[in-house]
Amino acid sequence: MKETFVFEKDFEVRDYEADIQGIVNNANYLHYFEHTRNMFLRQRGFDFAELHARGIDTVVARVDVRYKQSLRPSDQFVCRLAVRKEGIRFIFKQAIVRKPDNALCAEAETTVVSLVDGRLRESYELNEAFASDFYDVK
Amino acid sequence: MKETFVFEKDFEVRDYEADIQGIVNNANYLHYFEHTRNMFLRQRGFDFAELHARGIDTVVARVDVRYKQSLRPSDQFVCRLAVRKEGIRFIFKQAIVRKPDNALCAEAETTVVSLVDGRLRESYELNEAFASDFYDVK
Amino acid sequence: MKETFVFEKDFEVRDYEADIQGIVNNANYLHYFEHTRNMFLRQRGFDFAELHARGIDTVVARVDVRYKQSLRPSDQFVCRLAVRKEGIRFIFKQAIVRKPDNALCAEAETTVVSLVDGRLRESYELNEAFASDFYDVK
Amino acid sequence: MKETFVFEKDFEVRDYEADIQGIVNNANYLHYFEHTRNMFLRQRGFDFAELHARGIDTVVARVDVRYKQSLRPSDQFVCRLAVRKEGIRFIFKQAIVRKPDNALCAEAETTVVSLVDGRLRESYELNEAFASDFYDVK
Repeated sequence: MKETFVFEKDFEVRDYEADIQGIVNNANYLHYFEHTRNMFLRQRGFDFAELHARGIDTVVARVDVRYKQSLRPSDQFVCRLAVRKEGIRFIFKQAIVRKPDNALCAEAETTVVSLVDGRLRESYELNEAFASDFYDVK
Repeated sequence: MKETFVFEKDFEVRDYEADIQGIVNNANYLHYFEHTRNMFLRQRGFDFAELHARGIDTVVARVDVRYKQSLRPSDQFVCRLAVRKEGIRFIFKQAIVRKPDNALCAEAETTVVSLVDGRLRESYELNEAFASDFYDVK
Repeated sequence: MKETFVFEKDFEVRDYEADIQGIVNNANYLHYFEHTRNMFLRQRGFDFAELHARGIDTVVARVDVRYKQSLRPSDQFVCRLAVRKEGIRFIFKQAIVRKPDNALCAEAETTVVSLVDGRLRESYELNEAFASDFYDVK
Repeated sequence: MKETFVFEKDFEVRDYEADIQGIVNNANYLHYFEHTRNMFLRQRGFDFAELHARGIDTVVARVDVRYKQSLRPSDQFVCRLAVRKEGIRFIFKQAIVRKPDNALCAEAETTVVSLVDGRLRESYELNEAFASDFYDVK
């Protein structure tokens, strides 16, 4: 499998995101992945909060994260994103890569579905937002 | 596959755990799963923080969560746990079940490995903690 | 000043709430205080999320926290609450007390105002919710 | 009182930081304030995690936050910082200002003390880190 990442977002670890072990807590990676998806959505002209106000929600149906190297306080990293559509589902491939050594710290496959007025349904807006990227993951 | 859950922990949603969509943010489920594992560890006579102080860390290598029903503010739920060992890895099966309607809200398979003094290694303590439960997932 | 606490809520520290220093991160105390206020509201027959859906929001205007003793993983504690009204504002006095040694870990004064349809305004529901307790802090 | 801010840090709201009311949850402001202080410390040549490893901790003794305007998803803002010393305590004045309209969203006074090997004590390193700025708040 080969991804063509179509978006990336820079981050730095915030000290409070690390736990007693001195490494970023596993739950915070989901925050990084989500923020990257939402910033991608915004770059494509749509906004998570504004879509919600119009009754269109993106909901995570599944997330599968493989942790490779622990992020630590003071680490800088980039979170990359590719997306394809499978039936009604959007499948995001995401990778967290530490700078400057380019170490792969985590990768995730996240399945997102759209709810319109609370019901599972195709959303024109989300299809539009992610459209040109459907071919990006082989 | 059939799990025999060997531990469970009661929770109630805290309003701040919900996001703008009015449902518990996907990352918080990892907090529920982790807290349940750590309380199980404690019930077995070991403590996450105290083990860390002795150089023994449990680190999440992979987490695969399937979200079925969204938890919402005021929901009460239980998080159940089963564990088995595969080679050096502990595999936790966990389920979040809402009360009182018993709806399955999320299930996860979490792979945990032990680090001793920062290196991947078997930990006598963790083997002991999870031992009698190795046969619990068929 | 003397408070008569009218509500309390039991908690246990969750390991992920502690940071690299091994103590609960200062921001999490605000979560404890908020969850306690919202559970008090619920006990009084009102619900934070349901009020929001009707256009009634409680918003924190000020919070002043004094940290006395650090909470640590495995600590159990209680969060107590008193409330009085001053003009349009609700003033909550809250204390976090560790068990079983009864050590005062933190105390806070939180000022909450109500917004109705986004504008600063008295809310009948919130006045009702907190009414019998107005005399509780001298 | 007049502050001369000596450091500032750019932020953007992450959607997960907003709660069901659609505004950034009050606890997250403490994260913004802390991250700004720690990045200031780093700019001055010291690191929170590395100091902790050497037995030197900065601990929040008090935080007093006034919330003026709610931050919302998609907001960009800057967090500014001034610091002075009073006896053994460092007093940080911090302000969160939204861009591009320059609205003051929150201001805080945070009292930080240093622990050396777990005991309240002056830290040469922290005095050094914050020294040239002692005169910055009049």
